[in-house]
This record gives sequence, structure tokens and C-alpha cells, in this order.
Amino acid sequence: MSETGKPQVCIVMGSTSDLPTMEAAIDMLKEFEIPYTVRVLSAHRTPNETLKLAEEARENGIQVFIAGAGGAAHLAGVIASSTPLPVIGVPMQTSALGGLDSLLSIVQMPGGIPVATTAIGKAGAKNAAILAAQMIGLADPAVMKKVEDFKQAQAEKVLANSYLDL
Amino acid sequence: MSETGKPQVCIVMGSTSDLPTMEAAIDMLKEFEIPYTVRVLSAHRTPNETLKLAEEARENGIQVFIAGAGGAAHLAGVIASSTPLPVIGVPMQTSALGGLDSLLSIVQMPGGIPVATTAIGKAGAKNAAILAAQMIGLADPAVMKKVEDFKQAQAEKVLANSYLDL
Amino acid sequence: MSETGKPQVCIVMGSTSDLPTMEAAIDMLKEFEIPYTVRVLSAHRTPNETLKLAEEARENGIQVFIAGAGGAAHLAGVIASSTPLPVIGVPMQTSALGGLDSLLSIVQMPGGIPVATTAIGKAGAKNAAILAAQMIGLADPAVMKKVEDFKQAQAEKVLANSYLDL
Amino acid sequence: MSETGKPQVCIVMGSTSDLPTMEAAIDMLKEFEIPYTVRVLSAHRTPNETLKLAEEARENGIQVFIAGAGGAAHLAGVIASSTPLPVIGVPMQTSALGGLDSLLSIVQMPGGIPVATTAIGKAGAKNAAILAAQMIGLADPAVMKKVEDFKQAQAEKVLANSYLDL
Amino acid sequence: MSETGKPQVCIVMGSTSDLPTMEAAIDMLKEFEIPYTVRVLSAHRTPNETLKLAEEARENGIQVFIAGAGGAAHLAGVIASSTPLPVIGVPMQTSALGGLDSLLSIVQMPGGIPVATTAIGKAGAKNAAILAAQMIGLADPAVMKKVEDFKQAQAEKVLANSYLDL
Amino acid sequence: MSETGKPQVCIVMGSTSDLPTMEAAIDMLKEFEIPYTVRVLSAHRTPNETLKLAEEARENGIQVFIAGAGGAAHLAGVIASSTPLPVIGVPMQTSALGGLDSLLSIVQMPGGIPVATTAIGKAGAKNAAILAAQMIGLADPAVMKKVEDFKQAQAEKVLANSYLDL
Amino acid sequence: MSETGKPQVCIVMGSTSDLPTMEAAIDMLKEFEIPYTVRVLSAHRTPNETLKLAEEARENGIQVFIAGAGGAAHLAGVIASSTPLPVIGVPMQTSALGGLDSLLSIVQMPGGIPVATTAIGKAGAKNAAILAAQMIGLADPAVMKKVEDFKQAQAEKVLANSYLDL
Amino acid sequence: MSETGKPQVCIVMGSTSDLPTMEAAIDMLKEFEIPYTVRVLSAHRTPNETLKLAEEARENGIQVFIAGAGGAAHLAGVIASSTPLPVIGVPMQTSALGGLDSLLSIVQMPGGIPVATTAIGKAGAKNAAILAAQMIGLADPAVMKKVEDFKQAQAEKVLANSYLDL
Repeated sequence: MSETGKPQVCIVMGSTSDLPTMEAAIDMLKEFEIPYTVRVLSAHRTPNETLKLAEEARENGIQVFIAGAGGAAHLAGVIASSTPLPVIGVPMQTSALGGLDSLLSIVQMPGGIPVATTAIGKAGAKNAAILAAQMIGLADPAVMKKVEDFKQAQAEKVLANSYLDL
Repeated sequence: MSETGKPQVCIVMGSTSDLPTMEAAIDMLKEFEIPYTVRVLSAHRTPNETLKLAEEARENGIQVFIAGAGGAAHLAGVIASSTPLPVIGVPMQTSALGGLDSLLSIVQMPGGIPVATTAIGKAGAKNAAILAAQMIGLADPAVMKKVEDFKQAQAEKVLANSYLDL
Repeated sequence: MSETGKPQVCIVMGSTSDLPTMEAAIDMLKEFEIPYTVRVLSAHRTPNETLKLAEEARENGIQVFIAGAGGAAHLAGVIASSTPLPVIGVPMQTSALGGLDSLLSIVQMPGGIPVATTAIGKAGAKNAAILAAQMIGLADPAVMKKVEDFKQAQAEKVLANSYLDL
Repeated sequence: MSETGKPQVCIVMGSTSDLPTMEAAIDMLKEFEIPYTVRVLSAHRTPNETLKLAEEARENGIQVFIAGAGGAAHLAGVIASSTPLPVIGVPMQTSALGGLDSLLSIVQMPGGIPVATTAIGKAGAKNAAILAAQMIGLADPAVMKKVEDFKQAQAEKVLANSYLDL
Repeated sequence: MSETGKPQVCIVMGSTSDLPTMEAAIDMLKEFEIPYTVRVLSAHRTPNETLKLAEEARENGIQVFIAGAGGAAHLAGVIASSTPLPVIGVPMQTSALGGLDSLLSIVQMPGGIPVATTAIGKAGAKNAAILAAQMIGLADPAVMKKVEDFKQAQAEKVLANSYLDL
Repeated sequence: MSETGKPQVCIVMGSTSDLPTMEAAIDMLKEFEIPYTVRVLSAHRTPNETLKLAEEARENGIQVFIAGAGGAAHLAGVIASSTPLPVIGVPMQTSALGGLDSLLSIVQMPGGIPVATTAIGKAGAKNAAILAAQMIGLADPAVMKKVEDFKQAQAEKVLANSYLDL
Repeated sequence: MSETGKPQVCIVMGSTSDLPTMEAAIDMLKEFEIPYTVRVLSAHRTPNETLKLAEEARENGIQVFIAGAGGAAHLAGVIASSTPLPVIGVPMQTSALGGLDSLLSIVQMPGGIPVATTAIGKAGAKNAAILAAQMIGLADPAVMKKVEDFKQAQAEKVLANSYLDL
Repeated sequence: MSETGKPQVCIVMGSTSDLPTMEAAIDMLKEFEIPYTVRVLSAHRTPNETLKLAEEARENGIQVFIAGAGGAAHLAGVIASSTPLPVIGVPMQTSALGGLDSLLSIVQMPGGIPVATTAIGKAGAKNAAILAAQMIGLADPAVMKKVEDFKQAQAEKVLANSYLDL
């Protein structure tokens, strides 16, 4: 858990094997100084605990869920079923199908239960954290300022190396 | 509900729009005279009721689940998370991706939580019922006999029209 | 434009041919009584106007973008490039590839520029509006209450027809 | 062959190159103490022996088949053609197409001849064994108890490491 | 059966529903005046009759098999398992996956058991017949002459309408 | 070139980088003692020489073409356009799309110009040679006998290791 | 043939069935008043005529080729093999695989022989004509002016209907 | 920047990580002695600079753009939106989906805004440079001569190693 305050973002992953990918989300939240908590819970192995986490999140102060899972990735959808909070889903890359299975299992949700899906793998995990910051930033100008600064710094970094003399 | 006795098979579908497909399973169970019950429950819209159904199924005499769903199809996996009974998943055909999304969402389950997946659409629904009969038939020779008779009749039907004079 | 106040959500679509799909988002925002505006702008045909819309959105009071586009669908990504506000992308179904092209063009964003992607087609458009409501609801309990009520009503509707006597 | 009794499960694979994957099924059956036998037989190279195995399985006491194959994977379907017993198919991961070929060749069976398909690769092999245990457990409470214990232990293992302090 | 002599080509299809596609092969063989026979046999519903047909084909004078099937299309591979004769496989178009399932199930045969695969659907059925004629033509110059004439006529037909005045 | 006589099979590949795959075809033809020749010619880089090879093949005694190519693999189709001889196409595995591009470029030929397509990669190359032998064997019983012996040996090899004591 | 002068663009299609799609290219060239010619020639049915067209194009004043074909679409690549002129390839939509086969057969050309590929279907045909105009416009300011005017008009058309009052 | 004169080709890539692929384009332009410039600019991170580059390119003497990007690859389309010059798009290979995402994001452009798409990866980058040379060569016979020489040399290189004695 981050030490900067009561968690606003709850990162959940289906397995500790998803951690190397999800660390990109953690790093980004740290950079934004958004307090978070990290849980490993499986929609399939621990369904009741997963639902409980989702049901109690709002009263615990959580504002956004980030859920990473792979294959028949039901974690984000199961959390979304039991909370009115926005849920961001991150598809894991998989060895057999590259993550197309994870992506379709997360993004193709039926009407009524959205999951905000990001790209497969690390880029998606990083973007999930930025998206969470953008959501929180709607009510917290300090956070939105950090998103803007991040975008600015990111642009400057590209521009600093924009001319290649090859 | 069938009128032939206490339900042994529980057919669940995510939406009434899945019914035209799932009727192929119902018809087949009727032919095998296996008592069944049919429920419409959504892993996403009614998560607690879905888990409850799964958790109480065994003590209610259910032996096999058949779960049909489409898109990010989590229904079979969510049921499988909460019962030791075998769960058969039927992927619905979808308009955008043909059912590849449904198939991958159902079949690519992580190690530890199996879902016995059948083909996309009506053929899969029909086969789900036959598969349920094969499972029940392991302990009930009368049911296994019906499976054998079905296979025999099916073969004879093919052979009766095997020669085409074109 | 809705008549309930200053627009909080800006719905953009790449072509009027996307309107039948995007109406599912409009209907949902109406149901949530969230004020919105609807624009047709193309990342490719009107790039400057699209960037301008994105750049000025925040000062105009917009809180969330919903962008629907098909094929090589760049609209959501282009808007996301020029605003710190959260951007939700809705992939249109396409005749040749079913919408897989739209989906991958929207969801596979590089690290640093998130687009919150929903399902292909109408379900995705509807969910984009719910997701927007969830984001706005983080700071506006009245909106979050409407999301909760919607989820509750949705569940009750499923449960009211949960038992099929077939 | 396991030494715990007359085989109840027959594991068949198309080639010894499938063994590293199928060992996940063998390990799981050992854990459940379900007696099994392992055969290497090819639907294409040894068609008659494969059919003979299927035809004689039931009278030999076999209750469930687990068939693993890759590419144009016909093994499970060919066995299913010649036995009323339930047949579980495990798609091998392949180097060219990742296993999509194996998956579609196994799961897309025509109406009338089901194959209970699991995930591509090791997760699918492990789940095939659990599925076999669930089927056998319908008539054998001791086996079903083991399935329940496995699920319980699996959940506890996840929960023991559920909180990550990152 | 054609009336021009002892069948040299055996057309087999998995279901009478494949006939509208396979008629393109029959028409082409008629045009080449190659005697043929047409059978409906299923690798899954009538495995023994299918193997028997394959095993006895050579002594019955058959020189080439053309096998059309859809979905988990095992027919061509099963025939190829039991005859040294060349086997041509025609993948049926399918409603869910367009025929990608049929194609991969037929073409991705393991080393040792070839199936000469043609295109999905009618073009593939027509080409299967031409391919059979090319094989038979290796030993029968009259047939090879017909193939050449067909190719010549086909080219002339294109050239006769090659200039469009638009 | 093999030293056993005038070439009956012409193996063509689009690039020397295809040789490691196509060697599986060469090895098999050697085992069958079928004389062959090997050419590297590109449909795109050397179109005229490729057409010339195809046009002159029959009078040069060639009976069957085996063409291996990758990506937008036009080699087999271009050869097929200019000879009445049967042409077998072998799709190369590719790094980006696994060989799906090669496969579709070879197998989806229009009606009128067949290419007998085999599996992606080495298995396909091996099978191309067996298929060539089956075609040549239609008129040459000694070759067909070798195909039968190969099938028999292949089956015996599987059966010799059919029982695994695990 | 257009009546505005010596053809600068040669539109080739593999079959008259491609005409409804390719008309989008013809219409666009008419709008740009770029003289063109339209041929139906098949890489597979009329290989020599196709190569001859390509070889003689430059001396005939052709500057750009637009080649439309479907399935195993070799037409653009075959033309590109025999001319130094730029070749634009338009993939046809296909019934079985939606045009993914056409696309991959055209775009995945080996290094050394480029084909400038556009989108599947009518949008791609229209864009092929615009691309041809852009190429011709490099040396002909009047044509480039027309491209600019077209882009301007296109933008204005979007902007004229940019505000939807829904 | 090349030292042979005022840049005629502008190579843009979305990230320096694309450089190893895009070097194949640079090498080819060097071989053709076509002056070029290389920029790293992101459609998403530096949208305004990207548009500015496109808008000013023509008056700066640029004749052709080559844009390489991966994933949701919008770079080529965004450049094409703001210049009448021809834009060539090169899809990067990606780890999760092999580059299918990059390809579809680049090639499936809507009618009105073409991007001339080449193959995924290095072959595509090389071909982009050749295509640029073909376009420039329409008005510059010296460049077209180099393209012809390149094609001739390429053919000779193939023919020099055309006979394999295996």
C-alpha cells in the first residue's frame, strides 16, 4: 500500500504472475502521488472475496478499480458487476494467443456493465493509472495538474530527441 | 422446467436473447428425458444470485451446469468458481466477431477452474446437452444407453442417405 | 444538445453514419440527466477542429469525452492527445472485419495516452455513457446514485424473468 | 499407468512431443488419486488402434477420455466418434498459430458429437484432469470431496498472498 | 454417380448441407468427363464406414479423394489416415467463423499425413476437381489435355472482356 | 539435384531463407527415391524466369511442382497459372503473423487455378513431398508401394511407443 | 477509358465481379480529371498478358497502377514485379474471411517489391485514386491543386454538419 | 539528415524504438541517393508538432512522407490529414499481436484520406523507401533509372543462386 494516504485506487490482479506487468500501473500512481492498495484476488479462485472487495470499495474510500487479468479474464467484469465505481481493465499478454483472449474477455462487456479497457500488457497498465488519475482529477485539480504536467513532460521528452541525424 | 423429475441439469443463460440458441440444449435433454431447469441470470447484472445458484446447486440435486453466454462471456466461469460440479460452457455467436470473443472468454480459463467448452452456437448447445448426458450416464446406465441409442440412430440416419446419385 | 445544463460530456463521432450506434450513448446520458453535446468531427478530415475541440474542452466545462469511430479509428486517440480529460473510445462495427480493426485502432494506445475502450457497437456506446456517469459520479453523489439505481433496476429486470418454464 | 487401481481415465496424446503439456493432467490425476492410463496414439497415423481404444474403453472400465493434440487436432473428435463416454479435448500450443488451429479443430465439433474442450496448453491439461474428477465425482463422493478440497486449498493459497505491500 | 465409367474420384462430404458447395466439384468433374462417385459420410457420426471407404478405395479403382467438411473438419484427415491415395480437402464456409475453423482443421495436418487443401467454399470445391484432374492427367494425357483446354478457354474468356470502357 | 534420374518433382522456393523449411520436402523425396530438382526463383523478383520454368516444366518431364513461399506468397499461384501440372504450395512460418499471411495467400486461390496447400512450415514441406509421391504413385506402383510402406512404418513407430508408464 | 487524354492511371481488376468496388476509384479519377484506362486481367488466368501490360505500361505513358483483387490476391504483386512504376493494391472484401485474406496477400510483400496497399473495399478503391492523384501531383501542380481542393471540400462538408442537436 | 541535398522524403517514426526497423528505409534512400530527413514525433504525445510538420512539408520541399508506428498506429493517418502529399505507412511488429494491430490501424483508413501501407516490419520499411523512389521517379528519370537498376540487380542476385544442388 502506498503511504501517502487512504487508498483512492484499488489495483487487483488475478495472479502474482501479473505483477511484472501491473507494476507499470503502480509506478505511475506513485509518480502521481495517488494513494493506492494492491490486491491479488481471482474471480475464479476467490469469487466471494472478489465480490466483497467490490461491494465494500466505495464505503472504504476507493474511487477507481484497476483490474489486470489474462486468458478468460473475468476479474474486471466481476468487480464491475458489484460496484458503481469505474473499473479499468488491463489485458495481460498471453503466450498462446498474445493477449487477444484477454482483450476480448475484458472489452466485449454487455450493455449495462462497462469496463474501461486499456492496451494489452505494460502500456495498458501504465495507461490504466493515468486514466485513474484523469478520473480522480475531475474533482481534484491538483491531480489533474499532475496529469497535465506529465503530458507536457512527455511531449518535451519526445521533442528533445525529435531530430535524428542519420 | 421439465416434468420428468427433480432437475439434474441446470441450464443458465446470460440473456433471453440467448434462448433461440440454447433451445437446442433443451430439446436434447427432453429427448434424453433428463430433468432440467432453465434460468436466466447474468454474471454481470446479477452476480450474487448467480453465485448463490452455483453454491446451492449440488445440495439441490443438480449434477451438471450448462451455461450459455456471449461476448465477454463470464457466466460459465463464474458458476464454475462456486461449485465443484462440472460446468459446460456454450459460446454464443456474436454479430461483430462471430463468437470468437465468446469462445475465448469461455475456453481460456486459468488452471484450477475448468469449463467444458463446446462449439459456438446451436451445435454447441446441442452438444452441451449430450455431454451432460454422458456425464450423468457414468452413474446411470439408462442414460448412457440413451446416448448410445442416439449415436446409433444418428449414424443410421447418415448411412440411409449416404449414396448420392448426382 | 441536451437541455439540462452546460454540457459535461462531449460525444464526438467520426461520421454521421456512426450515429445509429452512438445514439445508445445519447439515450443513456438522457436517462442519467447528464448534459451533453454531440459533434461530428473527423480526426482525418478535420484535424485542426478536432484538436481545437479537445484543447478547449476543459475550459468549456467538459469533463469526459466519448469518441466513436470505425476502421483505422484515430478519433479517440487524437482527442486524448490534446486534453487531460478522460477519453472513452467506442469501436464501430465494420462490414469487412467486424470491428476488430476499430477495436485494435482504439485500444492499443501507447503508454502515456490512455483511451478507455468499450465493446464494439451499441453495447459499447451504451457502456461509454455509463462509464462517463461513473466518472462524473466520483464528485457528484447525485449522479452516482443514478448509476446505482440503474444497476439495481437492471438486476431486477433480469430477476423478474429469471425462471423460464420451458 | 497409475498404481492405485483399474484406470478410470484414459489420457491419449497424438505425439510424445505433447507429453510436457499433458503431464499437467497426469499430475492432477495423481493428486486426486484417480487411476489412469496413458497412451500415445495418432488419429492419423494409427486410426484403427485409436478407434479400437475408443470402442473398447467402456468395457475396460474407462469412464473419461482426455485427448491432447495440436494443429489439425482430430484425436479427441475421432475418439468421441466411437464411444459414448465423455471426451475432454486439450488443444496444444503451436509455434505458427499459437494453438488457435488446435483449439478450433477440437472445439468446433458438429452437433451430435461433443468434445469438452479446455484451454490451450498446460492450463487446459490441468483443467482436463479436474473436469474428469468432477465427472467421476458425480457418482463417487470421495472424488467430489477431493475436488472440493482442491478448490478450497486453491482459494486459501490465493488469499494467503492476497495483500501486496508495494 | 457419373455414368461415364468406373469412378476414379470419390467425393465425400460430411453432411448433405455441404452439397450446394460441393456441386462445384461435381460440375467440374462432369466437364472433364472424369467418372466419380458421391458419398455422404461423417468422420464423427460414421467413423467405421468412413475408414472402410478409405481402406477399400484403391482396390475399387478410386484414384483421388475429394473431401468437403466444415467446422472441426476431420473428414479429409480421417480418410487420409487410411489410404495411400491423394486426398483433397475442401473447407466449408461457416456462419460463425467464416470457415477459418474449417480451413485450419483441414490444412494444419501433422507431418506424415498430407491433405491437399483448397480455398474455402465453392472456389475450393471447383479447384479440388481441377486438382484431381491434374493428378489423373499425369498418367492420362487425354485428361491433361482437358485441363489445358480448360485453362485456355478460361484465359480467353477473361481476355474477351478485358477492356472496360468506363 | 538428386542423382536418381530425370527430375519428376520441381521444388521451387522464393528465397534461400526458405531452405531450412523446404529441406523437409527434399529429405522425403530422397527417402522415396523420387528424382527432383531444386530452384530458388521469386514470383516478384524474377517473374519471367518463374513463368518460363512453369511453362516448360511438362516438356522437361516434371510431373509435380512444390512451391514454398512466405508473406504475400504468390509463388505457387504464379506457377499454377502457367502449367497444367499439379502445384503444391507450402506456406512459410513468418515472424509477424506466424504464417497466417503465407497460408491465406496460397490457399485462397480463385476458382480455376488450384494450388494444393499443405500446413505451415516443416510439417507442410514434408507433406508436400508425400503428396507428390501419392500423385506420381497413381501411375507408378513402385512409388505408391513406398508411400504405403512409409505409412506402415510410421504407424509402427507410433505403436512401438504407444504405452507410457507414467 | 476516360476521354480526357492519354491514360496516366491503369486500373486493373482480377474479375468483373470486382467492378462495383473499383468504380469508387474510377469515379474519383473522373473527379480529378485524370485520364485512365480500365482492364480486367487475372494474375492467374492470364499471366502473360498481365506481365505484358506491366512491362509496357511505362512506355505507354502510364504513371501509376491501381490493382484490385480478392482472396489470394496476387494481381498487384505480379504487376509490381514487372514495372518500376508505383503500384497501388486494393483488397476486395470476401464472403468467407471478410477480406483479411485479400489484405494480407497484397500488403505482406517481400522486401524489394512494394505494393502501396489501401483499405479493404470501396474506401480503399476511392483512396487508391486519391493516392494516384497525389503521386501524379508531385510533378503536376494542377493535379495537386485538385487534391487540395478535394481535401478542403471534404473538410467543409464535415464541418457543415458538425453540430448535431440531439 | 542525408547530405545529398534538400530533403525530398520525410521519415517520421513514433518512437526511437522504431528506429531499428525504419533503418531499412533510410538505407534504401541512401542507396537511391534521395535526400531525406528523419524525425521522431508522436501523433499522441506531440500532436501539434506532428500536424505542423505535415502542414509545412510541401513548402519545405518534401515530396513524400514515410511514417512508421506500432499498436494503435495513428501517425501516418494524422500526417495524411494535414498534407496533400502522398503518405506511406509502415506498421511496426508488436510483441502481443505481431503487428496486426499496427497494420489495421494504418491500412483501414476511411475514404478520402489514403495511406499507402506496406508490409509489417523491416520489409515494409525497405519497400516504403522504394515506393517513395517510384513516386519521385515519376518526374525524375534519374531516380526511376535507379529503381530499374535496383530491380535488375535484385533479379540477377536471385538468378545467380537459383540452382541449388541438394
